[in-house]
Amino acid sequence: MSRLFKRKDAKKGKPPGSLIFVGQKKVEEVTIDVYEYNKETVYQAKVKFPLEVEHYKETPDNSWIDVIGVHDPEIIKAIGDHFEVHVLNQEDIMSTDQRPKCDVSEKGIYLVLQMLKYHEGKITSGQLSIWLTHRCIISFQEVMGDVFDPVRDRLLNPNSKLRARGVDYLGIVLLDTIIDNYIIIIERFGEELELLEEDLLERTTEAQLAKLNVYKRELHYLRRAMRPVREVILRLYKAESELVQTENLPYIKDLEDHITQALDSVELYREMLNDLMSLHQSGINNKQNEILKVLTVFSVVFIPLTFIAGVYGTNFENIPELRSPIGYYVFWVAEMIIAACMLLYFKVKGWF
Amino acid sequence: MSRLFKRKDAKKGKPPGSLIFVGQKKVEEVTIDVYEYNKETVYQAKVKFPLEVEHYKETPDNSWIDVIGVHDPEIIKAIGDHFEVHVLNQEDIMSTDQRPKCDVSEKGIYLVLQMLKYHEGKITSGQLSIWLTHRCIISFQEVMGDVFDPVRDRLLNPNSKLRARGVDYLGIVLLDTIIDNYIIIIERFGEELELLEEDLLERTTEAQLAKLNVYKRELHYLRRAMRPVREVILRLYKAESELVQTENLPYIKDLEDHITQALDSVELYREMLNDLMSLHQSGINNKQNEILKVLTVFSVVFIPLTFIAGVYGTNFENIPELRSPIGYYVFWVAEMIIAACMLLYFKVKGWF
Amino acid sequence: MSRLFKRKDAKKGKPPGSLIFVGQKKVEEVTIDVYEYNKETVYQAKVKFPLEVEHYKETPDNSWIDVIGVHDPEIIKAIGDHFEVHVLNQEDIMSTDQRPKCDVSEKGIYLVLQMLKYHEGKITSGQLSIWLTHRCIISFQEVMGDVFDPVRDRLLNPNSKLRARGVDYLGIVLLDTIIDNYIIIIERFGEELELLEEDLLERTTEAQLAKLNVYKRELHYLRRAMRPVREVILRLYKAESELVQTENLPYIKDLEDHITQALDSVELYREMLNDLMSLHQSGINNKQNEILKVLTVFSVVFIPLTFIAGVYGTNFENIPELRSPIGYYVFWVAEMIIAACMLLYFKVKGWF
Amino acid sequence: MSRLFKRKDAKKGKPPGSLIFVGQKKVEEVTIDVYEYNKETVYQAKVKFPLEVEHYKETPDNSWIDVIGVHDPEIIKAIGDHFEVHVLNQEDIMSTDQRPKCDVSEKGIYLVLQMLKYHEGKITSGQLSIWLTHRCIISFQEVMGDVFDPVRDRLLNPNSKLRARGVDYLGIVLLDTIIDNYIIIIERFGEELELLEEDLLERTTEAQLAKLNVYKRELHYLRRAMRPVREVILRLYKAESELVQTENLPYIKDLEDHITQALDSVELYREMLNDLMSLHQSGINNKQNEILKVLTVFSVVFIPLTFIAGVYGTNFENIPELRSPIGYYVFWVAEMIIAACMLLYFKVKGWF
Amino acid sequence: MSRLFKRKDAKKGKPPGSLIFVGQKKVEEVTIDVYEYNKETVYQAKVKFPLEVEHYKETPDNSWIDVIGVHDPEIIKAIGDHFEVHVLNQEDIMSTDQRPKCDVSEKGIYLVLQMLKYHEGKITSGQLSIWLTHRCIISFQEVMGDVFDPVRDRLLNPNSKLRARGVDYLGIVLLDTIIDNYIIIIERFGEELELLEEDLLERTTEAQLAKLNVYKRELHYLRRAMRPVREVILRLYKAESELVQTENLPYIKDLEDHITQALDSVELYREMLNDLMSLHQSGINNKQNEILKVLTVFSVVFIPLTFIAGVYGTNFENIPELRSPIGYYVFWVAEMIIAACMLLYFKVKGWF
Repeated sequence: MSRLFKRKDAKKGKPPGSLIFVGQKKVEEVTIDVYEYNKETVYQAKVKFPLEVEHYKETPDNSWIDVIGVHDPEIIKAIGDHFEVHVLNQEDIMSTDQRPKCDVSEKGIYLVLQMLKYHEGKITSGQLSIWLTHRCIISFQEVMGDVFDPVRDRLLNPNSKLRARGVDYLGIVLLDTIIDNYIIIIERFGEELELLEEDLLERTTEAQLAKLNVYKRELHYLRRAMRPVREVILRLYKAESELVQTENLPYIKDLEDHITQALDSVELYREMLNDLMSLHQSGINNKQNEILKVLTVFSVVFIPLTFIAGVYGTNFENIPELRSPIGYYVFWVAEMIIAACMLLYFKVKGWF
Repeated sequence: MSRLFKRKDAKKGKPPGSLIFVGQKKVEEVTIDVYEYNKETVYQAKVKFPLEVEHYKETPDNSWIDVIGVHDPEIIKAIGDHFEVHVLNQEDIMSTDQRPKCDVSEKGIYLVLQMLKYHEGKITSGQLSIWLTHRCIISFQEVMGDVFDPVRDRLLNPNSKLRARGVDYLGIVLLDTIIDNYIIIIERFGEELELLEEDLLERTTEAQLAKLNVYKRELHYLRRAMRPVREVILRLYKAESELVQTENLPYIKDLEDHITQALDSVELYREMLNDLMSLHQSGINNKQNEILKVLTVFSVVFIPLTFIAGVYGTNFENIPELRSPIGYYVFWVAEMIIAACMLLYFKVKGWF
Repeated sequence: MSRLFKRKDAKKGKPPGSLIFVGQKKVEEVTIDVYEYNKETVYQAKVKFPLEVEHYKETPDNSWIDVIGVHDPEIIKAIGDHFEVHVLNQEDIMSTDQRPKCDVSEKGIYLVLQMLKYHEGKITSGQLSIWLTHRCIISFQEVMGDVFDPVRDRLLNPNSKLRARGVDYLGIVLLDTIIDNYIIIIERFGEELELLEEDLLERTTEAQLAKLNVYKRELHYLRRAMRPVREVILRLYKAESELVQTENLPYIKDLEDHITQALDSVELYREMLNDLMSLHQSGINNKQNEILKVLTVFSVVFIPLTFIAGVYGTNFENIPELRSPIGYYVFWVAEMIIAACMLLYFKVKGWF
Repeated sequence: MSRLFKRKDAKKGKPPGSLIFVGQKKVEEVTIDVYEYNKETVYQAKVKFPLEVEHYKETPDNSWIDVIGVHDPEIIKAIGDHFEVHVLNQEDIMSTDQRPKCDVSEKGIYLVLQMLKYHEGKITSGQLSIWLTHRCIISFQEVMGDVFDPVRDRLLNPNSKLRARGVDYLGIVLLDTIIDNYIIIIERFGEELELLEEDLLERTTEAQLAKLNVYKRELHYLRRAMRPVREVILRLYKAESELVQTENLPYIKDLEDHITQALDSVELYREMLNDLMSLHQSGINNKQNEILKVLTVFSVVFIPLTFIAGVYGTNFENIPELRSPIGYYVFWVAEMIIAACMLLYFKVKGWF
Repeated sequence: MSRLFKRKDAKKGKPPGSLIFVGQKKVEEVTIDVYEYNKETVYQAKVKFPLEVEHYKETPDNSWIDVIGVHDPEIIKAIGDHFEVHVLNQEDIMSTDQRPKCDVSEKGIYLVLQMLKYHEGKITSGQLSIWLTHRCIISFQEVMGDVFDPVRDRLLNPNSKLRARGVDYLGIVLLDTIIDNYIIIIERFGEELELLEEDLLERTTEAQLAKLNVYKRELHYLRRAMRPVREVILRLYKAESELVQTENLPYIKDLEDHITQALDSVELYREMLNDLMSLHQSGINNKQNEILKVLTVFSVVFIPLTFIAGVYGTNFENIPELRSPIGYYVFWVAEMIIAACMLLYFKVKGWF
């Protein structure tokens, strides 16, 4: 199965809003973690059945319901229906190749984006859907191993600002963590690119070309995941939803600054990759000239020498030079002079 | 006749709104299927004469009139006039190379787009026009063999949401089916491209270039058919026509998400194709360097050897080496040493 | 004189609105055809003096005044002043390299575009200016031989819708005829391009490159003439002039659809040309590899053979092989074996 | 000093609005010509001291003050302050590498653009600033030798429309003259380009590449000077300043048409230059193939011949062919046949 | 550590608004200079502790607080909190790879951009943050050695306009100084590029390619720092903040003109670099053709000569030419004629 696209044949002909899992199952069992918190206390729990989740809608405290694993339509439907997630958004949660987007309704705000990981030159993604509603935020993650551990730590820390603020601020912090992670990936990418550039300025190998190609594909992948995120953030900023408090707007603006900067860098690396591509091309051309030079210098130096040897190998009678006792030595000297002249000629022309 | 463009000479000088079939006749006989449905019942019929269709305008139930074959102006005119399709849209129905578009009027909504098929690396299209009016939707298809069978099945299924909703929802479902089909085609395209990429990273052949060229043309074709569809969907979303119920707007928004994602992928593949193109070019250049290296190594190794053989082939008198009983063997050893030096030189230079 | 640009030196320093003919005189004598028509009758006349034209302004019937030849400032001024054409538009009529545009004023609507002809791979243009005013439409053509004959036929046909409608509809029909003609030219262009593509996939010649270059220039020319036309049509659509009846607006919208489709195709062909360009380039590179392969195979096979022959051509005493009675035959066998090994080596490497 | 950029170091750290001349002094002495005119009379004068200029502000007639030479801050300040030119605009007048722009204030309209000259393939520029205020227009020119002589002639002509209209019309006429001059330069450029194209289709030389490069740089220069002018004209058109009479707006619109057309042509030539660039590249590649073909044909034909000669140069005893009296002649015939076969092979392969 | 990107790992998981220094510490100790000024007097001081700064908020005079060194969170927090800088902007001050931006709030205007230095072909940057509030402007600089010395001189000059105007004008002057510095860097860049171009038109070396690559990267870097500045200026211009007096708006407009011109030049140089890149490529191709020509001329001239020498080296009996007493001399003459013909052939073909 292609990494870029996920088999959608299963959805062919199904009505819009059908809950069908699209993608590769990356988690064995669905786990649901719940954090119920207010300024003073945090209550943390692991939930077994989706039904248990339901009472968090009614509590006066803020809750973060963190669902890991999105392949089970029953769980998604149970939680989704209870928290009034639109059926099309429920479908989006399960279609793990969703383009990042933000849907705003009175019931809540639905956000979807891709969490990225960079491991040994390869980027993998895991989809994250966030449903933000009154006093409750639900996150649906495709894969285990998110980047949210520092957020969880801060939530458990009684002095954290996070505890004192609403779930919208928690949502912003989650987004901030993801975008920070994007930037870290881009940085690592950039470092490898600069190493490659240094290598390219020294020598030209085929392995470099393969590497450049891999980087190009990974960058396509990165761009595809990140580019729509800016739109998502802007949409959130301009949503004018009562779910987002005005005092938190500067934090969303800050997210936009970060993602814009990240996208700038991606574009920069794209251009850098193109430059490196043509640098490699020039390297190959130079190498070809090197090869041709070696061939030409050897040929041109020896061709006249061989010709002269050939002349004195002819069986003509009466060749005066052959008779001379010093003929052979004169012949060698003449050959040397010719060779020296040739080499001088190439030297003057700047060939080596 | 070109696949991309269809002979329009026949229309030269005809007034706008003339019903002239443009394209290749792809269906022998026009067939008309009718589905009259409400929440409880479905009535399915094959209609012989266009006149029979007319009473479906008056029934209080919803109807889907599915016309296959658009080459007969009389049938198009009869149905079109009865259902108040604008004469220019009637012309569009018969011009089978229409750019996708959406015309909204009080009488109804006219949509036209291309259904695509991908078979053995080649994309073929069949035009679909949809006329959405009160309690009635008419589809005009250029070719047999559409992708609507699952929709028909759902229509016949008494539990389907499709039956309970208006014809506008049926229209959205038809569009959804077409766009899902686009995505499936793109996926297949992508898989072939990734196979080709793997192949390209291994070796370089001329067949790959021909393949790349074919993919490029097919992608042009795909883009040409798909790119205006996004506009069409947006136009529909913003039409503010009373023919589209507000509760169905999220489904249209969902269509827009899908087509945007599909177009993103098409752009991605376009760039990937360009990358593969230059990868292939680099492959050819590398091959050339390979050839040149072989030529140069052989020439450079043997040229001095041959020269020395030439020297001892000269007929000079008094060449002391020739007299020596071990001369011949020394000659061979010298040749071997020279050859070894040359090979060592290339080894050090990293040529093989 | 360049085809793309017309000598403007004559206008240097003249005030704006000066009536100076810019271009190549393409018509010997100015001819003026007049069609006065209403639902019932058509009156057709050839006019000698521009003054005769004047009474058509007062008649209650619709008139089409068709002026062929725009090099005579007196005629343009006489007609222009009488029908209240702005002096700058009068200047435009005579500047035959005008960019297509649409000026809307209370007095009338001024449109200018280029009629194109495609003959033996070359596109030529003739400027058409249209002045649409109350019950009167005046067309100024730079060259003889327009594409309007079918329109004239329809005007003479008593059953034609054209007769029953206003001059604005006649104007739309004229534009429609021109844009249809654009599409026909593009189609022909496309067919030639597809033929060339087939040719290119088979072989690579220098003639193809020259052809590609000619097509590229013609496509530039085509684009330059066509691209602003979309703007012109949109301007007309949004003019909100009382000279254009609301019921005719769908026809203008239809024109916009056609020109958009035509421009899409032009862009497609531009990209196709670029693809063919690089296909040709690849062809040349492949050819070079072919040449190099032939050179290398021959050189590499014969170089060792010649070397060995050289060895046995040396005049060393005591070469044992030379003495052997079967020496010569062993020599030939050895040479054959070496040659066979070399050829096998290239075979294995996949060179032929 | 670079032609494209002018040393700004002198301005480093100076406050905005400092009157410092930036550029190369191109005029020895500042000259000031004044034209005071109304419908009936023209008064023309050469002014020595800037103070003399001042009374033209009070006269009821229109005045055109034409200042040639902008390197003297005192003169600029004297005139600028008297006519209420903003201090930043005074600075702009003296910075002769100003980007074209239009500043509209209540006091007057400030316009700055570059007058271009094309001489022997090189474009030079001279900055023109225009200050349009009530009944008075002041032009500041960097260099002698403008393109305004026809305007001066018309001003002296009692029948000219120019005399009867306001200074805003005079300003438009000045702009029109400059833009017409742009178009003339582009035309000449285009003619040279088409000559070069013909040359390129025939042969490939290194001089062409140098020429292409020069044209490319000049076109960059041209674009840089012209592209912002469209903005300037649009700004003027939409200024809604009472200094520009409504009846003159169509003339400004006309200017916009001209500059748009000129920019279209510049873009066209840019693309043409790129096409010529790749045509030249193809020419070089073809030439390389030519060279390789010559080398290969000669090598491949003679290599086997030389090998066979080498064989019969060996000193084997018992070579039967050598003994034969016709051996030598058979040898020659065999060589000829081999050479003929080789040539036939290349002929069949289409190499010559 | 990469120059383009600064390690952000330290910020991973920290909440938005955390004061963590990002970048390389470039200043040992933080220094704070204060200028308190009004029309009559200036008071200049070096401040040790951030708390001392606080009383400048209350004074009726204008103050400029210039903080050099941004790595100490305590100082930034102390000053930032006292002058009501938003916590997110405090974070921005310490993140020294900030994208230029402008945040406007009621409390003040926050601006951040990069000051650039060009030294021996390498651009380095130092971040500058400006906080403009009532009667007080605070600048935070990442590095020592700014470009503000002339501004400081003017501040100390009692006749300077700077003293008489508000802190907003001082802010504009600071921005003006930075942008002037950008332009000076671009100019220097341009001069080096033009030198390189002259060099490239003469010869082709590998060092040029490395140089082109370095310039390309530096230009990327320059663009990345400068492109957002235009937005920043426009944002400031349209801020409608009461902190910026209306009479100073033309000065901001002037800044926008300058930065637009600078960006135009950057784009121009980008295109010039691409042109030089392909010029270099053509140079390499030409060189390759040169090499091939030398090889071919030598080979083609000597190959037939060597062949003929080989023929007369054969040991056939009865070769009549060998017996002839003038045979050897005829042989030489024939060789000469053949060589001359070959050289003539290449001369005619225009190879040298």
